[in-house]
Amino acid sequence: MKKQINIAIVGLGQVGIFLYNEINNKKKDIELKTGRKINIVGISAKNKNKKRRFKINKKIFFTNPLNIIQNKKIDVLFECIGLSDGISLRVVEKALKNKINVITPNKALIAKHGDYLSKLAERKNTNLEFEASVAGGIPILRTIKEGLATNKIHKVFGILNGTTNYILSEMEKTGENFNKVLKKAQFLGYAEPGNPKFDLNGLDAFAKVRILSALAFNNLISKKKCIMEGIEKIDIKDIKIANQLNLRIKLLGISEMINGKLFETVHPCLVGKNTYIGNVNGVMNAVITQGKPVGESIFQGEGAGPGPTSSSLLSDLLSILRGNKKYPFGISYVKRKIVKPFNNNNYTNSLYLRFEVKDKSGVLSKITNRLAKFKISIKRIIQTPDKKNNKATIVIITHKTSEINSKKCLSVFRKDRDILQFPTLIRLY
Amino acid sequence: MKKQINIAIVGLGQVGIFLYNEINNKKKDIELKTGRKINIVGISAKNKNKKRRFKINKKIFFTNPLNIIQNKKIDVLFECIGLSDGISLRVVEKALKNKINVITPNKALIAKHGDYLSKLAERKNTNLEFEASVAGGIPILRTIKEGLATNKIHKVFGILNGTTNYILSEMEKTGENFNKVLKKAQFLGYAEPGNPKFDLNGLDAFAKVRILSALAFNNLISKKKCIMEGIEKIDIKDIKIANQLNLRIKLLGISEMINGKLFETVHPCLVGKNTYIGNVNGVMNAVITQGKPVGESIFQGEGAGPGPTSSSLLSDLLSILRGNKKYPFGISYVKRKIVKPFNNNNYTNSLYLRFEVKDKSGVLSKITNRLAKFKISIKRIIQTPDKKNNKATIVIITHKTSEINSKKCLSVFRKDRDILQFPTLIRLY
Repeated sequence: MKKQINIAIVGLGQVGIFLYNEINNKKKDIELKTGRKINIVGISAKNKNKKRRFKINKKIFFTNPLNIIQNKKIDVLFECIGLSDGISLRVVEKALKNKINVITPNKALIAKHGDYLSKLAERKNTNLEFEASVAGGIPILRTIKEGLATNKIHKVFGILNGTTNYILSEMEKTGENFNKVLKKAQFLGYAEPGNPKFDLNGLDAFAKVRILSALAFNNLISKKKCIMEGIEKIDIKDIKIANQLNLRIKLLGISEMINGKLFETVHPCLVGKNTYIGNVNGVMNAVITQGKPVGESIFQGEGAGPGPTSSSLLSDLLSILRGNKKYPFGISYVKRKIVKPFNNNNYTNSLYLRFEVKDKSGVLSKITNRLAKFKISIKRIIQTPDKKNNKATIVIITHKTSEINSKKCLSVFRKDRDILQFPTLIRLY
Repeated sequence: MKKQINIAIVGLGQVGIFLYNEINNKKKDIELKTGRKINIVGISAKNKNKKRRFKINKKIFFTNPLNIIQNKKIDVLFECIGLSDGISLRVVEKALKNKINVITPNKALIAKHGDYLSKLAERKNTNLEFEASVAGGIPILRTIKEGLATNKIHKVFGILNGTTNYILSEMEKTGENFNKVLKKAQFLGYAEPGNPKFDLNGLDAFAKVRILSALAFNNLISKKKCIMEGIEKIDIKDIKIANQLNLRIKLLGISEMINGKLFETVHPCLVGKNTYIGNVNGVMNAVITQGKPVGESIFQGEGAGPGPTSSSLLSDLLSILRGNKKYPFGISYVKRKIVKPFNNNNYTNSLYLRFEVKDKSGVLSKITNRLAKFKISIKRIIQTPDKKNNKATIVIITHKTSEINSKKCLSVFRKDRDILQFPTLIRLY
C-alpha cells in the first residue's frame, strides 16, 4: 500500500461529521500506528450549508457522492448515509467496483446486501469493513472473525440496540410511560427525532443479529422471516410487575444453532435482576458468545452515539492501512454455507402472560382451563383487583411451551368479552 | 506466505498438549479460514514418556527444543514452557533470529523480555504474538491493538488472575479459610499443585498489567517497583465482614495514566456487591478499558485453563496464516515511549482497616486519635467484642488518604501491646 492515502466520507450526519473531525485530529496518531499519511479529499452530504457540529472544508464538498469516486483518487471510502438501498448501495457498489476500500456502520445495508457486496469486494481484492454496524464501540465482529476464530460458536446473543435499552431502563427508573420516555430519548439524541420506528420495532437489532449469525456460523445471510417483536407494546404496568418479580425487561437479539439449524430472533425478554444481562442498563450494549473451547465470553460497551461508532470505523481504517486484506465475513464467499432455518413454531419458552379482565367470577377458571387444555402448566399466578373500575389484572408465569402452542391457546381470547384486551405475552429468558 | 506451514510446539504441559490436539483436530477449519495447510513437525518437552491427556507422535519428538529449529523448517513456533528466562527465552530468541514466527502464552517472559524480543522480531520482520498471555480466552490484546486502536485509553483494569478469583469466591461461598480453599483449587487444577506462589502473591496478574500498559499507552514495559499485594493474607474474617458491608474482595490489576504518569498496581480491593466487577466470580477474568471517544468497555471470559488459552493461541496462529505482519506491541519499537512513573506514595484510597485489640477501655480512642493526627477521617466504625477471649475486632472504613500517610499512621501499631496484630488494610475501589 502506498504511503499517502486519500479518504472520502459520504454522509455528514451525526456519525459522519464526528468521524470527519476525528480523522483530522488523529492524523499523526494514525501515521504513527500504520506508517501512512491520510488525507480527506472528498466529502458529500445532502445539504452543503446545513449547520453542523464541526466545520467542514467546503472546497472538497461534492453534491453527488458518486462524483467523488469519478473525480478523485480515493483509497478508502466511508459510507455514513445509512440507507438499506438507494444511494448507500450505489455508492458502495461503485466504490468496490473501482477497487476502493469501503468502511461503513450501515447495518441495514449489510444485512440486506452483505452477501452480494462481500462477493464483489472479494472479486476485486478490496476490503469491505463494517465493524461499526454491530454494537457501536464493541469490536465484536473483529473478535468473532479473529479473536475467537477457531472456536465452534453455537450461540451469540445480547442487547444490541441502545435506544430501546435506554427507554426500558428509564421507564423502570422513573415509572413514566413509553411515550413520555421516548420523547425524552429523542430530546437526548438517543432516539431518532423523525422516525424512531426501526429502533423500536426490533428491525435495527435484527439486522445486527443477521450479521452476527453470518460471522459466527460462517453462513450466508439468512432471508427467513423470524420472530421479531419490538418494545412498542411494553406497558409501564409490565415493567412494574416485572420489578416485583425481581425481573427486568430487556430487548434481546438471539442467534443460535439448534440441532444444526439456524434460529434468529429479536424480542423483549424477562431476565433476572441479578443476572449479568439484567444489569446492562441505559444506552449500553452487550454481546455474549458461547463457544468451544473458549466457553462463555462477554463484551460490553457503549452501543450508540458517534463516539463509539467512530472508534469502530477507525479500527477498520487502521486494519486497512496496516495492509490487512480480509474476507468481509471471515471466510471466502464461496465457502459460506446456506443453513437450514429452525422452525419458529418449535421455539420454547416460559411465558409471562398478562390478562386484563372483568372482575367477575369464572374468568380466572376460564383462563386456567384454556391453558390446561393446551398442556401449558402454570408456575405462578398474581391477581390484582381494580375494584373501582370493576376490573382485575391477572399475571400468569407458565412453564415452558412452544410458540405454536401458546399462539393457538391464546387465540381464543381475542373474542372473549370478559378479557378486555388481547393478553400481553413476554418470554422469559 | 507459502501454502504448507510447519509448526513446532515446545512444552507439552496442560496448555501445550491441549493445543497439540486442537491443531490436529482443526486443520481443515484452519485451511478453510486461511488457505494454508498446517502440519506439526516438531514437539518437545522435558519428558518424552510422561502420561499425557492426548497421545503424541513420538517420531517428531525432540529432547532439546533448540534442535527443532536446527533440524526442521519451522514457520511458526509455539513456546508453552512458561519460564520467564532460561530455555523459554533461548527458544524464542533463536526462533526469531531464524525468522520463525513465535506465539506464546508466557506472560512472565513477555513482561520481562518483551521489549527486547519485540525489537528482535521487528528487525527480522517476523511476528511475535502473545494474545494468550493476558486474560485467557478474552482477545483483549488484539482488541486494544486493533479494535480500539485510535482511542485515547487512560485506564485498563480488571480481574486478571483466575486462580485468586476462584479462591476468593469460594471462601465467600463456603466460609472456609484460605488454606482449605487453596487445596481445593489445587485439586481442581485451578492452582498449581507444586508452587502456586506466583498466582497468589499477585506476580502473575502484575506481569499482565505490565503488558496491558505497554499496549494501551504505547510505552516500553516499565521496570519500576510497584505496590503489589496478593491474597495470601486475606482472612475469612475479612470476607465475612465485607459481606455484611455489602462488599466483596477482588484482586484487581490496575494500569492508569495519572497526569501523564504511569501508575501500575495489583492488590486486593473491596468492591460493591452490586457493581459489575463485584459480580465476576469463580475462574472468570474481566478487563475494563476506559478511553475516548469509545467510553467504557468491558470484556469478560474464562481466564484460566487450556481451552481458553488455546483459543487465543490459535487466534494468533490465524492472524499469522492470514499474512498479517504486526508490531508485537501495536506500534514500532522505536516509537514506543519511556513513561514517567507515578509516585506510589500519592496513590489515594478509602481504606478498610481491621484491628484485633485487647478489649479494654482506651484502645479505640488510641486508634481514632492516631488516625485524627494523620487527618484520616473515619466514615464508619464497627466494633465486635469477643468477650470470651477478652478481645475485640474493630473495623474502620476511612475516607480517602494517601499510601504514604496511611503507612506512617499505621506504623505505630506494630509495637503497641494492646493491638494484637498489625492491622489488616484493604483498599476500597
